[in-house]
Amino acid sequence: MKIVALEAHDVRFPTSRELDGSDAMNPDPDYSAAYVVLRTDDGLEGHGFCFTIGRGNDVCVAAIEAHAPLVVGTDLDLGDLGGFARRLVHDSQLRWLGPEKGAVHMAAAAVVNAAFDLAGRAAGLPVWRLLAEMSPEQIVDLADWRYLTDVLTPARALEILQDAKTGRAERTEKLLATGYPAYTTTPGWLGYSDEKLVRLAREAVADGFTQIKLKVGANLDDDIRRMRLAREAVGPDIRIAVDANQRWDVGPAIEWTKALAPYGVYWIEEPTSPDDVLGHAAVRRAVAPVKVATGEHIANRVMVKQMLQAGALDVLQIDACRVAGVTENVANLLLAAAHGVPVCPHAGGVGLCEAVQHISMFDYVAVSGTADDRVIEYVDHLHEHFTDPVRIVNGRYAAPTAPGMSTEMRAASLAAHAFPDGEVWRS
Amino acid sequence: MKIVALEAHDVRFPTSRELDGSDAMNPDPDYSAAYVVLRTDDGLEGHGFCFTIGRGNDVCVAAIEAHAPLVVGTDLDLGDLGGFARRLVHDSQLRWLGPEKGAVHMAAAAVVNAAFDLAGRAAGLPVWRLLAEMSPEQIVDLADWRYLTDVLTPARALEILQDAKTGRAERTEKLLATGYPAYTTTPGWLGYSDEKLVRLAREAVADGFTQIKLKVGANLDDDIRRMRLAREAVGPDIRIAVDANQRWDVGPAIEWTKALAPYGVYWIEEPTSPDDVLGHAAVRRAVAPVKVATGEHIANRVMVKQMLQAGALDVLQIDACRVAGVTENVANLLLAAAHGVPVCPHAGGVGLCEAVQHISMFDYVAVSGTADDRVIEYVDHLHEHFTDPVRIVNGRYAAPTAPGMSTEMRAASLAAHAFPDGEVWRS
Repeated sequence: MKIVALEAHDVRFPTSRELDGSDAMNPDPDYSAAYVVLRTDDGLEGHGFCFTIGRGNDVCVAAIEAHAPLVVGTDLDLGDLGGFARRLVHDSQLRWLGPEKGAVHMAAAAVVNAAFDLAGRAAGLPVWRLLAEMSPEQIVDLADWRYLTDVLTPARALEILQDAKTGRAERTEKLLATGYPAYTTTPGWLGYSDEKLVRLAREAVADGFTQIKLKVGANLDDDIRRMRLAREAVGPDIRIAVDANQRWDVGPAIEWTKALAPYGVYWIEEPTSPDDVLGHAAVRRAVAPVKVATGEHIANRVMVKQMLQAGALDVLQIDACRVAGVTENVANLLLAAAHGVPVCPHAGGVGLCEAVQHISMFDYVAVSGTADDRVIEYVDHLHEHFTDPVRIVNGRYAAPTAPGMSTEMRAASLAAHAFPDGEVWRS
Repeated sequence: MKIVALEAHDVRFPTSRELDGSDAMNPDPDYSAAYVVLRTDDGLEGHGFCFTIGRGNDVCVAAIEAHAPLVVGTDLDLGDLGGFARRLVHDSQLRWLGPEKGAVHMAAAAVVNAAFDLAGRAAGLPVWRLLAEMSPEQIVDLADWRYLTDVLTPARALEILQDAKTGRAERTEKLLATGYPAYTTTPGWLGYSDEKLVRLAREAVADGFTQIKLKVGANLDDDIRRMRLAREAVGPDIRIAVDANQRWDVGPAIEWTKALAPYGVYWIEEPTSPDDVLGHAAVRRAVAPVKVATGEHIANRVMVKQMLQAGALDVLQIDACRVAGVTENVANLLLAAAHGVPVCPHAGGVGLCEAVQHISMFDYVAVSGTADDRVIEYVDHLHEHFTDPVRIVNGRYAAPTAPGMSTEMRAASLAAHAFPDGEVWRS
């Protein structure tokens, strides 16, 4: 099948008007998607996007369009999506803008995920299941092994996948029956009042969630008060994670986390720069038993490799659209499995829940083989704009069954939120 | 003074037609600049750019334009260029595309360097001298200290700068008299024939260079032959560096470097991914006394910090336009000085020699206080397109004396190489 068109869209939601999504580093996000549609000559479509928080979404749209010459007019071999992704990521000129980071890499995520969405539709399967039904050899071939082999070889990855073959069918059945665990960030945005925090925290427990998350990092006294209120609201048995969104240097990260620890902090997320492997390792050593979690801004698998090598993380938070899509996340899952580190994806924003659930469900069925201590982030924003929105049942993600990667936005939503000319922005 | 306009230009040179600039990872570069002009209400202009190798230059142009709302209409305080840079880099929405990496960060480099070019013109000084005449306190204030303080505090940086105050005047005089040492990559492009390599290597020595560099990494037998021919051509006393441009995983990097070492390799440059701090450290431990050099693709000061923390580098190769311009390179120089690691900038491309010479000369006069074992890369390409091109005299960069950062391209060159409509591309 031949790809005959790549269409890019600048889609933005005016979320800053309500302070949804506000945190210590991102006080005013307008959740946005640089959105791509791939069309083939046999009438199939694939939808993908990368997520931004407003200004700069146009840069990602330009970066998606920069991939058009590599994609349009080429044959898409659904049996070699690893090769498809590697051709994009290693383009001899585009790679200069990374390599493998920033806007071009996020654009590659959008295009690669669109190709997987298309592959799922072609196979009549949700992407988690398309992946989970591949042979270990096929899965190994999806990953880009460049720069990984000092820590994980394809041969060792194959062993991990072969070990996990046992029980695939049972886990698939269980997943379809009971879903995958979630946690919710809905109560914890920094812009919310104490009253709203407490109310939403109680509602989260009532809705079946066993973990919530609070944004921290703007003011220590406020954070201690909010942490205390949240703990009182949810009781001793609910996990409370906190998220600093890269606010601190290493020293303050340690002090601040220790000040919150008496209220029962499950993990401290993004305590410092996502590039700071050695800094995260220092924080982790200092704040244990509080866990350290990072990943939504980790640029690529080389950084994931080092985070694991350096013992810098207790929890790896992959993002569906920051690294180069499904294929690079296959490498990230394998690296995490090899190090025994649970993957608890970043989600929220717009469409990130829809996309990343497929990665975690594949991890459960065919890579790590477990959902113990794994949770996918859930935020109750903007799902109504997707044709196959996530469904949360009793604090768990129900496994999607529709073909594709759940990444298709409703046509009316695309039109209304087109930036700057859609009706939402004109008004 | 108020900034009244930000103009961005997509400028490309068809260098791939001659295989100038060819290496193991970049076989066909079209040297390009995403170029910016800042205009002020008092008629001053500042020129800056970031460098790319062709496809994707438009993405950097879009990223530069995305900075316009942060810049146009604002007052430019020439006494607070550190603050100017921090406002760009930490924009609460744009930073999502990095943070501090990739296209948005390269765009910040272009805009920040343009502001320094403008400041140099306003002061009637070349930028190296503008910087070298600042007080230690002013220099410390240029840098962005976020994420650095676990390794280098502003207070310690101030001590380094105060120590280097002694002798500033003498070093300035010496620099004006004799220039700053250079090395040349001109002989060593991978696309060149053996005969051309030998001829250009001999010419380099005759021209006064004491170090040359060869591109390696495509084929080991070829590299051994080329290294042997180069060594025979230049004799035992000229340093030969080799540059793999990120071609290898850690294991092959070590093996390949060891195979070339008998011919006298001064440094191995970019042996593996520029993100791989721990990988570089492993290579360095294994290949000593061959030195390890990296930096042209190091995304930001947080990565520089870790490279130095981990003992991963013998030589730091800053780039003028990859990190966020002069201000982030001030931080990089201070980090290197604190670790006793020499800075030998990456240059070449289009305009990188012109821009980065200012950083090294400032380093010599006011930061490290020495040019021992320091060299700026020199490549004899495309200088004719600049209004104040570098001048190489007996293998050394002559200190620029014209006001600004030497970053202004000739108007006729801008017009002819405009992509895709300039005459060079229409033909």
